[in-house]
Amino acid sequence: LWLPSASVVRAMSSSTGPTAPFTTLAISHPAKSVTHVELHRPEKLNAMNSAFWSEMVECFNDLAADPDCRVVVVSGAGRLFTAGIDLMDMASDVLQPQGDDTARISWSLRRKIAKYQETFSVIEKCPKPVVVAVHGACIGGGVDLITACDIRLCTQDAWFQVKEVDIGLAADVGTLQRLPKVIGSRSLVNDLALTARRMYADEAKSSGLVSRVFPDKEAMITGAVEMAGEIAGRSPVAVQGTKINLIYSRDHSVAEGLDYMATWNMSMLQTDDVIKSAQASMEKKGPKTVTFSKL
Amino acid sequence: LWLPSASVVRAMSSSTGPTAPFTTLAISHPAKSVTHVELHRPEKLNAMNSAFWSEMVECFNDLAADPDCRVVVVSGAGRLFTAGIDLMDMASDVLQPQGDDTARISWSLRRKIAKYQETFSVIEKCPKPVVVAVHGACIGGGVDLITACDIRLCTQDAWFQVKEVDIGLAADVGTLQRLPKVIGSRSLVNDLALTARRMYADEAKSSGLVSRVFPDKEAMITGAVEMAGEIAGRSPVAVQGTKINLIYSRDHSVAEGLDYMATWNMSMLQTDDVIKSAQASMEKKGPKTVTFSKL
Amino acid sequence: LWLPSASVVRAMSSSTGPTAPFTTLAISHPAKSVTHVELHRPEKLNAMNSAFWSEMVECFNDLAADPDCRVVVVSGAGRLFTAGIDLMDMASDVLQPQGDDTARISWSLRRKIAKYQETFSVIEKCPKPVVVAVHGACIGGGVDLITACDIRLCTQDAWFQVKEVDIGLAADVGTLQRLPKVIGSRSLVNDLALTARRMYADEAKSSGLVSRVFPDKEAMITGAVEMAGEIAGRSPVAVQGTKINLIYSRDHSVAEGLDYMATWNMSMLQTDDVIKSAQASMEKKGPKTVTFSKL
Amino acid sequence: LWLPSASVVRAMSSSTGPTAPFTTLAISHPAKSVTHVELHRPEKLNAMNSAFWSEMVECFNDLAADPDCRVVVVSGAGRLFTAGIDLMDMASDVLQPQGDDTARISWSLRRKIAKYQETFSVIEKCPKPVVVAVHGACIGGGVDLITACDIRLCTQDAWFQVKEVDIGLAADVGTLQRLPKVIGSRSLVNDLALTARRMYADEAKSSGLVSRVFPDKEAMITGAVEMAGEIAGRSPVAVQGTKINLIYSRDHSVAEGLDYMATWNMSMLQTDDVIKSAQASMEKKGPKTVTFSKL
Amino acid sequence: LWLPSASVVRAMSSSTGPTAPFTTLAISHPAKSVTHVELHRPEKLNAMNSAFWSEMVECFNDLAADPDCRVVVVSGAGRLFTAGIDLMDMASDVLQPQGDDTARISWSLRRKIAKYQETFSVIEKCPKPVVVAVHGACIGGGVDLITACDIRLCTQDAWFQVKEVDIGLAADVGTLQRLPKVIGSRSLVNDLALTARRMYADEAKSSGLVSRVFPDKEAMITGAVEMAGEIAGRSPVAVQGTKINLIYSRDHSVAEGLDYMATWNMSMLQTDDVIKSAQASMEKKGPKTVTFSKL
Amino acid sequence: LWLPSASVVRAMSSSTGPTAPFTTLAISHPAKSVTHVELHRPEKLNAMNSAFWSEMVECFNDLAADPDCRVVVVSGAGRLFTAGIDLMDMASDVLQPQGDDTARISWSLRRKIAKYQETFSVIEKCPKPVVVAVHGACIGGGVDLITACDIRLCTQDAWFQVKEVDIGLAADVGTLQRLPKVIGSRSLVNDLALTARRMYADEAKSSGLVSRVFPDKEAMITGAVEMAGEIAGRSPVAVQGTKINLIYSRDHSVAEGLDYMATWNMSMLQTDDVIKSAQASMEKKGPKTVTFSKL
Repeated sequence: LWLPSASVVRAMSSSTGPTAPFTTLAISHPAKSVTHVELHRPEKLNAMNSAFWSEMVECFNDLAADPDCRVVVVSGAGRLFTAGIDLMDMASDVLQPQGDDTARISWSLRRKIAKYQETFSVIEKCPKPVVVAVHGACIGGGVDLITACDIRLCTQDAWFQVKEVDIGLAADVGTLQRLPKVIGSRSLVNDLALTARRMYADEAKSSGLVSRVFPDKEAMITGAVEMAGEIAGRSPVAVQGTKINLIYSRDHSVAEGLDYMATWNMSMLQTDDVIKSAQASMEKKGPKTVTFSKL
Repeated sequence: LWLPSASVVRAMSSSTGPTAPFTTLAISHPAKSVTHVELHRPEKLNAMNSAFWSEMVECFNDLAADPDCRVVVVSGAGRLFTAGIDLMDMASDVLQPQGDDTARISWSLRRKIAKYQETFSVIEKCPKPVVVAVHGACIGGGVDLITACDIRLCTQDAWFQVKEVDIGLAADVGTLQRLPKVIGSRSLVNDLALTARRMYADEAKSSGLVSRVFPDKEAMITGAVEMAGEIAGRSPVAVQGTKINLIYSRDHSVAEGLDYMATWNMSMLQTDDVIKSAQASMEKKGPKTVTFSKL
Repeated sequence: LWLPSASVVRAMSSSTGPTAPFTTLAISHPAKSVTHVELHRPEKLNAMNSAFWSEMVECFNDLAADPDCRVVVVSGAGRLFTAGIDLMDMASDVLQPQGDDTARISWSLRRKIAKYQETFSVIEKCPKPVVVAVHGACIGGGVDLITACDIRLCTQDAWFQVKEVDIGLAADVGTLQRLPKVIGSRSLVNDLALTARRMYADEAKSSGLVSRVFPDKEAMITGAVEMAGEIAGRSPVAVQGTKINLIYSRDHSVAEGLDYMATWNMSMLQTDDVIKSAQASMEKKGPKTVTFSKL
Repeated sequence: LWLPSASVVRAMSSSTGPTAPFTTLAISHPAKSVTHVELHRPEKLNAMNSAFWSEMVECFNDLAADPDCRVVVVSGAGRLFTAGIDLMDMASDVLQPQGDDTARISWSLRRKIAKYQETFSVIEKCPKPVVVAVHGACIGGGVDLITACDIRLCTQDAWFQVKEVDIGLAADVGTLQRLPKVIGSRSLVNDLALTARRMYADEAKSSGLVSRVFPDKEAMITGAVEMAGEIAGRSPVAVQGTKINLIYSRDHSVAEGLDYMATWNMSMLQTDDVIKSAQASMEKKGPKTVTFSKL
Repeated sequence: LWLPSASVVRAMSSSTGPTAPFTTLAISHPAKSVTHVELHRPEKLNAMNSAFWSEMVECFNDLAADPDCRVVVVSGAGRLFTAGIDLMDMASDVLQPQGDDTARISWSLRRKIAKYQETFSVIEKCPKPVVVAVHGACIGGGVDLITACDIRLCTQDAWFQVKEVDIGLAADVGTLQRLPKVIGSRSLVNDLALTARRMYADEAKSSGLVSRVFPDKEAMITGAVEMAGEIAGRSPVAVQGTKINLIYSRDHSVAEGLDYMATWNMSMLQTDDVIKSAQASMEKKGPKTVTFSKL
Repeated sequence: LWLPSASVVRAMSSSTGPTAPFTTLAISHPAKSVTHVELHRPEKLNAMNSAFWSEMVECFNDLAADPDCRVVVVSGAGRLFTAGIDLMDMASDVLQPQGDDTARISWSLRRKIAKYQETFSVIEKCPKPVVVAVHGACIGGGVDLITACDIRLCTQDAWFQVKEVDIGLAADVGTLQRLPKVIGSRSLVNDLALTARRMYADEAKSSGLVSRVFPDKEAMITGAVEMAGEIAGRSPVAVQGTKINLIYSRDHSVAEGLDYMATWNMSMLQTDDVIKSAQASMEKKGPKTVTFSKL
């Protein structure tokens, strides 16, 4: 069984800065079939600037197509996860939109919002599971980002803030759509979105926003990579089919979800992975001992 | 920062009885842009009589249109929040419906149920956030009411009861529709609705029905008004747009919610509130120092 | 008030083996209007073989039509609840599907999956509430089964495992569709489905998968039958209408759910059960003192 | 069989002007249980002014509740059906909206549009069938109006025009939503909405917009009242249930429509009207010979 | 090319009466892979009695599973297609429902309606295309039946009547749900359903209810069998996949339909039928010259 | 008023071959703000090869962003509109898919189908209206293409064929999803898709597939450009908002469509185009005399 040691974690991308062609993201491979995407503008608290919005799309489109990537871990370099949108960098784009009249300004704004929304929707459209690991602060756009991920982990010192009402707008790149489908308490969702108050790690855990809390960042990254390794060791046909159908189910009735699932699995069950896995299981070996073809 | 003192809370509407033109509701203004709506038939345990069902509609339609109201707090006068429907008063209406045959009786009943449903749906259609503060008991129709509110608070002595099966009917003014979308445990929802058992404050908190529990009513009202004041101090364009889009998202897929959000914000982002808020933020001042135009 | 004693519980079906015409299920009647369905292949850890898949459909279709059954309790005989699908027995059916080419094999597989899905959907289509009581392990197909039930209970030693990715497939008979609508934490759902890790009783309780945890199986069965008795003592018109509308609401918007509810209750409110129940209530007698007509 | 003579038609409301309390509508009763609503500002080509938008709501809400009205006929007084919105009268309302910034102007406009939409949605929400009879021109808002009616008739000289693009806006009170669900050719819908060209009676008939064309207005009104009389003579339980379920089906899948229908008819089939009608049928008498209770 | 001659048609099942085990249906096989289902109670005008409602379900479930059946033709024996529901036979079932109170009667009626609805829904769930050929009259339940079929043909003397309002009820086994999705003119649908007037062959053709009109029954049956033969000669993977996806599309948005289609065809494109058909096509041979494996 | 003369039409792109960077499309500008996209592989009957599938996406994405393009006309060069997919060129891509097992082949096929679907969905996502003009034959993929366009025109000699069942597959790039929402007769849709028979111009017109038939190609192109010019002369805010909302309405209920429309127009009504258009209208000048800002 592969286990990431602390030294492996320390050797991860963080120290060396962004990975070309990206200027805001550092990419590394801490374990077999696991890709680590690190928000990497630590001197700017990983604030989301213009480059970030397009680099995320490029990055996740690449990962979606890369057969050597089976699971993605996302985290932030430096003191905290992300301070959210980089208002200075984005101001001209969002606050001074162009257009000859209100309708044309609106038209242009709608196109931009849709583009920003896509930045996080690519995480969801990428069929590989995405584990996000949050330390320090996760503010504004950061919440939009993590709610589009599949599994959320955090450190004991982490806090979360739906910040948008504080700057006069309704959050428009995913938080209002995904947060209520990610945690079970509607009262809490409304509280967070309307008061912009901070939620700390304990409440994040008890409300179900995160499924595990770690004492510090090193432990969390170790845990995230370990979990990613567990998933990456299983059949990619099974794992990615699971992600796709879980997301489908969120947006459809149970009956529709079942129908889609049956139509999906009528071919996917014909994979050799089932035979290989079943055989390993009967021999009391774990799925991670099996070598699966690339997908 | 404005902070309601206990004296302010004591000065609230409760002592003086219903506010004209209402006979079951007392309206007061405990803080700037905050309206307090108190169920006020304490001698009848705030049971919901005929007058109540139409006064709620009138009240919330007024609040929806009143630019001086930005947040609403709802609570109950007297010993408990509400004993639910006033069976004595409503019996003739519901239990002795008129009509020449079963179809015509049914027709008339359907119209009445739809009217009662509307009583709580107006809370949801009112774009101003509604914070409900429950003490003592919240029974039957009370659960229908609070699940239509945005944020739920309660005292340590509060309990909740989906009472309808005990009187031979399936709850039909909102509980069965909204409760499962308000708390995350389906097993608990079914347990409550099928056994009519009481749920106490601790379980209400851990299940997410309420997002905060207070030691007593005074502390709760103080907390509710404080929270309402926090929200009321922020941009009404941001706050009300947030409520509208959160409710839209509940009833639609993520993709549909994002599309609606982009179409919503293409105009709303053009508000001066963003500039004002962003400026305050850069000057390290809170959003509550900003004066926003009425909406 | 009727209270099942431990002796009653011991007298239940478990000891005597499956009940004809079933070979995998034992049926008994531990309390008035309560039917107990026990998975009963203890020597095979209640693994789901071919017979099971069709017997469940026959059993629940019978229960749906049986006016003497108002509530169902499901549990497992022997050491644990269920080890899931019986791979040995089912292998030829699922792993060696017939057909002249890939399309025809797929066609045949889709039909089978749909049939297996129906096995658990019948639980949902049966209008009588189903309380499931889990002890020991609940693996793979077992999770599909319990998420289709209405109320989930477990013992302190119970654990749950979404096992399918371990054998190379995406769960396709209900878990991916129902689990996310049954518990509130999306991160946890994804974690369980993607890592196939075990979830123990405490997490099952805090996440809302089960609504009560009992120290041991005897206490749990006693509690389940007691709870079933509570529900069975209430108006079947109210109880079954509640189940039907709760499930409808899960798959529709609030507005659609309210409309359906009004259309439902326009006739159901005309039941004598309301009068009987209201009268009992005014006389301070519980609903269980009332005799309701069969439904 | 009741047959309206030409004299009856001539005696209809048109000559006498609007009926109090309305200033834009003339109400008359050309046949038993049939109400005739006439757009009545002939000197202004029945253009839709401020008064019209609220009078329609009041009128149809009244008709919905009036048991003596079972079918509604809508037509226009004077030279043509309607010239659409009265731009002069409405300009200040729509073209000079109030608000301190773009967001607040938008907010106010949205509320107005929703109000105007409601003007025609009341036709749909009124469970009594509405037959609309168009002569001369039906322009802009007129198309919004007629697509919300149930049955459309016209004279040989009638023409229809989706006018909105000609004044710089996308039609927003119903045409774009209902026209595609009212006629079968998508290409024609797009052609009409994008070019604002006129469609004449023959194309209106062949495309299915209208189901009958009459040589002139007198023949059409006679025919409309006759058809309305036919419908009004049948069981109101059957007729109004049919309208409600046809509209429900338009907006739902077939499976959802069937479920709603079964839930609807479980009470409505218990009407005495079925017995009365079946008996008349066996005696070879038409349904119009039966006296049905009011609904 | 196979062409049914008139003699073949005359040899079809009609003359010999119902085919065991059916008492209301006659089954024959007029062409390769084509099954003919004839409503066969000519002395009762093929009115739908109790037996009919369950025999249809059994029949179409059989056909769905029978690999030798690739296309179904439905027609009526004797003077006309069907007079609709057999009121005499069904009266006790529908008009004298059992139950101790209104709610229980309603419950029982809902179950019956659902069962009757299923009678025609099986036609839709059977993946083999169903061509229906109507002569003479098609009344009431007959319209429910034909709207659930895939292709509608009729003779010049045929007429159609949505009869239900004439007997005091809203049509509840499919007409109100399917007719509006089967023809393009909403005005015509409403006219037919509200006035219960007859629609003759010409209007049935111009409105799109039927896609072909034949001079007489013999020509129609010849044409229907010929069309069925054309379809039966093509790849069953292609044909049945087409039916399933066309029905899916009716009830979903275009985006959802496309997603389902891609998930469907990811396996179905792997059929040998594509290679065989493509090869035949390149050799300028028609698809009917190819032998396809059973499905 | 601008009117294209025959000479203009003759001067259009057809003679000069594909326009760089495209190899299968010729782009020209026959009128102000009108772009003509011609399928241009006449020697191959405009069959859709690999290049075509990606060039269409690039082309329509460009047009969507080009403010000088307000309307698009699509037609085919040479003898006919298109022979559909180029089986020779595409065979290796579709018929010999890669992958280590059935699941992986399926995965790869699904991605390809989705990519091909996108080729025609871009037409729908482009907010500028697309008028398609068909002459000669329109086969297979051609029908997928034209059903994604907004307005369909054809010549008297045109015919249409849903060809896919003839080569052993269910049409998977749009026909089965869009054709039923484009024409009103379900029976005809099924007939065409299941028998693969040809439909000629007259039936295409009477069924509503096309909205106009022209005697020959020259007249049709003249008419198409004229119609495009009419649309291009109107406010782009109005025209493109109309297209977007018509497509939204197709996939949503009327109530949802109205809500989206109101949210859309709350900003779009603030365009200067309304004032300009209204003024022109009052001065009895047409909308085409107004100069609108670019969008």
